[in-house]
Amino acid sequence: MAIDLQDTPQHGRLVAGEHRLPVRVYYEDTDAGGIVYHASYLRFMERARSDMLRVAGIDQRGALAAGEGVYAVTALAIRYRRPARLDDALLVVSRVTQIGAALIAVHQTVMRGDEVLAEADVTVAFVAPNGRPRRQPAAWMRIFEGLKGDDAS
Amino acid sequence: MAIDLQDTPQHGRLVAGEHRLPVRVYYEDTDAGGIVYHASYLRFMERARSDMLRVAGIDQRGALAAGEGVYAVTALAIRYRRPARLDDALLVVSRVTQIGAALIAVHQTVMRGDEVLAEADVTVAFVAPNGRPRRQPAAWMRIFEGLKGDDAS
Amino acid sequence: MAIDLQDTPQHGRLVAGEHRLPVRVYYEDTDAGGIVYHASYLRFMERARSDMLRVAGIDQRGALAAGEGVYAVTALAIRYRRPARLDDALLVVSRVTQIGAALIAVHQTVMRGDEVLAEADVTVAFVAPNGRPRRQPAAWMRIFEGLKGDDAS
Amino acid sequence: MAIDLQDTPQHGRLVAGEHRLPVRVYYEDTDAGGIVYHASYLRFMERARSDMLRVAGIDQRGALAAGEGVYAVTALAIRYRRPARLDDALLVVSRVTQIGAALIAVHQTVMRGDEVLAEADVTVAFVAPNGRPRRQPAAWMRIFEGLKGDDAS
Repeated sequence: MAIDLQDTPQHGRLVAGEHRLPVRVYYEDTDAGGIVYHASYLRFMERARSDMLRVAGIDQRGALAAGEGVYAVTALAIRYRRPARLDDALLVVSRVTQIGAALIAVHQTVMRGDEVLAEADVTVAFVAPNGRPRRQPAAWMRIFEGLKGDDAS
Repeated sequence: MAIDLQDTPQHGRLVAGEHRLPVRVYYEDTDAGGIVYHASYLRFMERARSDMLRVAGIDQRGALAAGEGVYAVTALAIRYRRPARLDDALLVVSRVTQIGAALIAVHQTVMRGDEVLAEADVTVAFVAPNGRPRRQPAAWMRIFEGLKGDDAS
Repeated sequence: MAIDLQDTPQHGRLVAGEHRLPVRVYYEDTDAGGIVYHASYLRFMERARSDMLRVAGIDQRGALAAGEGVYAVTALAIRYRRPARLDDALLVVSRVTQIGAALIAVHQTVMRGDEVLAEADVTVAFVAPNGRPRRQPAAWMRIFEGLKGDDAS
Repeated sequence: MAIDLQDTPQHGRLVAGEHRLPVRVYYEDTDAGGIVYHASYLRFMERARSDMLRVAGIDQRGALAAGEGVYAVTALAIRYRRPARLDDALLVVSRVTQIGAALIAVHQTVMRGDEVLAEADVTVAFVAPNGRPRRQPAAWMRIFEGLKGDDAS
């Protein structure tokens, strides 16, 4: 089978300090109420954070495999404004809002065209394999500073 | 196959105005970080809210089938304190903290023995099939008032 | 926010009668064994079938909303050959192998480069809102015949 | 909070060589078609296999933590007969049908009262941390032989 760029997963793109990841709503994301299940938005947002790191050049899987640590969500506040439905084409927009020694805060919105469907503030900590918070790699902090500084204004 | 109470799913119990639902951690709930995936806690908490309504005598499925409406989460704030792991026996403790015409607020904690693993405030609105907030059934509001009033003090 | 093709979800493409959908492995797809959870492959395959229909011009959501019917899996046999891991870039390759009045059979493989990770035969029936099998739309059967006939030989 | 047996998760029971686990259908298990999503049955069946091992005295988590190995599904064939719906009380019935050096085969049915909703044959291999099949612990094989021999006839 010939390799083709079209056969590679999307990982979104950085525009003016924001990461944008398109997401399609499939049956797995919906529930018997006919709309997207509320916890599915957390999955969409985690995909977006993972791809934001990927696009920025941060290798999460390598750090996990090397026993250095992983990012874990420590707090999350989300407001659901309008329901998404089967087959909707969504866009998850993510922006780093705060950078600490062992954590970052990210503001994320799930959009359908111009409509905001859900909006969240997520705090993510870098934790060692023993579960304790750990200072995140300095190189990664510089990357986050770059993302944070690169705003649209 | 003979019917037996042991062959019936648990739905938890009400104790002093709190609903308590035991939950087991299975592979489906965990991720490659070796701990419970952060969105899985929202699933555990939704099970607990559904069973709290069931135990209290509220028929969600009937209201959905009759086109009256469903409960939908409109806001949720969660703090993750310690990770849960494969095979853990957890307890989701839920307490109604606020009752409005079209919404209820519930405080929920996920416990492992005496440890608080996660803690959330969840706002749930009753919505009509067209997605608009709708006054919840008066009989249900009385049930929630009963739950709220029946505290441990 | 300006609309851009890069902000639209992938839906894969048809090549020589095969549909190819790229899929990324995220934390949500993995389990505490460090690999992709076995049921996640069914989600990847359902995404691929939905997108195969989408690319072929079949409107599942419209048929669901109009009360005409939905496709439901009636049988599935899957063999897991090698594990997928966090961050892997996968490709789901789908081929229609059989077309009946009320059902289609699809052969699906999940690839990582040239490696076959999982392989499945899936039978999907068109069912009316009452749950009974129903003759699928004639126009859709013609589309499936087109896909089936368009092989690589 | 006082400990109470009612606050402990169900793990099902062994009856005449069969393991029976009750499972409730929650919103997370359903999809926009109004029924249980087809991959959710695999989650129900994995819970039942995990609890069958637990009830039989096999410590999967310990073996995982000790780096000895884990069970991984290598093949699965499932037939969906009737749909399950929100709030349904189901029973997953599991029976060991074959025992090899490195694998076991399990027949599983998902019941709602006397109705068979889904039926599957699942092959599970014991795999070392490097992903290679490995001889399962002899003590565990004796337990499976006991389960297999203890039939209802």
